[in-house]
Amino acid sequence: MRADTERLLTGSRWDLLHEQDLAAVARVEGALAEGALDSFMRSGFVHILTPHITKATGACENIETLFSVDYFGSPGFLVQTGQLYLEAFIPRLQRVYCMGPSFRAEPAVDARHLTEFPLLEIEFATPPEGGLQVLMAQIEETVTSMLRRALATAREPLELLGADIPSLRKVRAPFPKIPYREAISLLNGMGEQLRFGDDLKHPHEQKLAAHAGGPVFITHYPKAIKFFNMRENPDQPAVVNSADLILPHSGEAVGAAEREHDYGKLLARLQASSMLRLLERRGGGIEDFRWYLDLVRAHPVPHAGCGIGLNRVTQFVLGSGDIRASTAFPLNKEFLL
Amino acid sequence: MRADTERLLTGSRWDLLHEQDLAAVARVEGALAEGALDSFMRSGFVHILTPHITKATGACENIETLFSVDYFGSPGFLVQTGQLYLEAFIPRLQRVYCMGPSFRAEPAVDARHLTEFPLLEIEFATPPEGGLQVLMAQIEETVTSMLRRALATAREPLELLGADIPSLRKVRAPFPKIPYREAISLLNGMGEQLRFGDDLKHPHEQKLAAHAGGPVFITHYPKAIKFFNMRENPDQPAVVNSADLILPHSGEAVGAAEREHDYGKLLARLQASSMLRLLERRGGGIEDFRWYLDLVRAHPVPHAGCGIGLNRVTQFVLGSGDIRASTAFPLNKEFLL
Repeated sequence: MRADTERLLTGSRWDLLHEQDLAAVARVEGALAEGALDSFMRSGFVHILTPHITKATGACENIETLFSVDYFGSPGFLVQTGQLYLEAFIPRLQRVYCMGPSFRAEPAVDARHLTEFPLLEIEFATPPEGGLQVLMAQIEETVTSMLRRALATAREPLELLGADIPSLRKVRAPFPKIPYREAISLLNGMGEQLRFGDDLKHPHEQKLAAHAGGPVFITHYPKAIKFFNMRENPDQPAVVNSADLILPHSGEAVGAAEREHDYGKLLARLQASSMLRLLERRGGGIEDFRWYLDLVRAHPVPHAGCGIGLNRVTQFVLGSGDIRASTAFPLNKEFLL
Repeated sequence: MRADTERLLTGSRWDLLHEQDLAAVARVEGALAEGALDSFMRSGFVHILTPHITKATGACENIETLFSVDYFGSPGFLVQTGQLYLEAFIPRLQRVYCMGPSFRAEPAVDARHLTEFPLLEIEFATPPEGGLQVLMAQIEETVTSMLRRALATAREPLELLGADIPSLRKVRAPFPKIPYREAISLLNGMGEQLRFGDDLKHPHEQKLAAHAGGPVFITHYPKAIKFFNMRENPDQPAVVNSADLILPHSGEAVGAAEREHDYGKLLARLQASSMLRLLERRGGGIEDFRWYLDLVRAHPVPHAGCGIGLNRVTQFVLGSGDIRASTAFPLNKEFLL
């Protein structure tokens, strides 16, 4: 990004609404969203209108960052992921997607956190084996479709904002794929001191992206630090068949995995999850997941899916280290319009 | 709709998630949404990612049905319309759209109310005169695009649900246009006792749709019962340059109008609005609208726009009198998943 686009951070958001830099960000953001939508439509996914006020099944791992809503005297939450609601339609529709806001009651006001951001999600039935490979190929298709559309329809704002267009044009599928265990070894070879089970932080992700020279998948994360329904690897039960897509500048832009369709395993994973502990502390419990558990029990269809954080892709495309400079309306604790 | 699709109302929503009727509704809903998105993209609109937790500028007229969110100790609301946030980009981008959930804290559990529904919105710069005609032509383009896509890609679920496909294939633009004053006379000729200033209720809308034999615009509503920024008609200051699209079965599916770009008039209208009275009762005030007022003052660009309630179109397409039978996840006071 051009150095003077730092005004996108220091200027008043109210004044920025009048300025060409913010309009340019909005155009890039919109083009990327359309590139994803276009990819989903071309790939035969059905658009599902998922709910945004939910019970606990709208939470991703972090129950603690759920926004509460007073829903006529009962507790409701603002959704963090439409994933389980999408999965509800897998048995009948096989391939589904949604797009909408994801909310996080995250008090940090910094370069990496927003309280609301657009999330693009897909879920689809897969072959019983090899689902992860099909999933990563679909993500590659969608992410390159996003870049293509931005380059084709938002060239002028990309230039205005100083995006590295020649580099973006060189992004090609397939992206490199590194298993988590190898990533840990690689990072330790670069002077880090990581152990199996540690989550990768932003600086680690950036080292891996630099090593790969662009977008890179980190696969097969430790089961203990991932969402309860990510499918255990049949050969290595300590890891799941997951893939995070790491991008230069922003880091994890896509979280993806095969989903557990074995009811017994799913139930055991949920019962053992730290998410359930947190939920119980907020007055919920396993019964909140009953409809989802029943669905998997009735229709154990192998499937996989992912969520794409739109503004993490925008950050990559704009070469910006700050998500606020890559978002038309960057909500955080200090900014609500 | 087939008579036995009433199960969509009487069955448990949890059980319905497994059934083909609900999956068919989801497919029709998704196809209609895609038809609208496709129309916006073809018509050169820029996709804006608008916020869904807002201050008072996310409210449509009815401040009383705003859901409150505890935003780190400060009051926030769940958005009802992205209109003003879209309008913020008119001076720079001219043609913009968004799609996302609209929230209403509406306690009624009946055939016409949901607490959340998908809203498709556009705003665009228009010629200084004739904006309303351009706007209605755009709505006709978008609504017929929605129907075309449903007929092309969701034929099987439409048949399964008993939609009247031959009638849908006959829907053609332009739609009839009736000024509000004429609509009142027409209805009074059918035995109603309406006066200028009365809002049209569901049975009135259905009589007008039956009279027109399909979709019909009711234009030029009384200023006093419409949103504060709908533009006053230059020749008849008691009415605004608005157009509601009324559909058989569902009623008002699209609310549309030219927007006031005269700062003085806009400010006076806001000050006189019942919305502002209601907002003051909830602790807000005119300062909540300052950024929007400043924007109009700095950039008085003639423009117009509309919001399309997706499930009102789904109801029409499915021939259903109940919005719950036309929505994949129909949230209301009694149903949260």
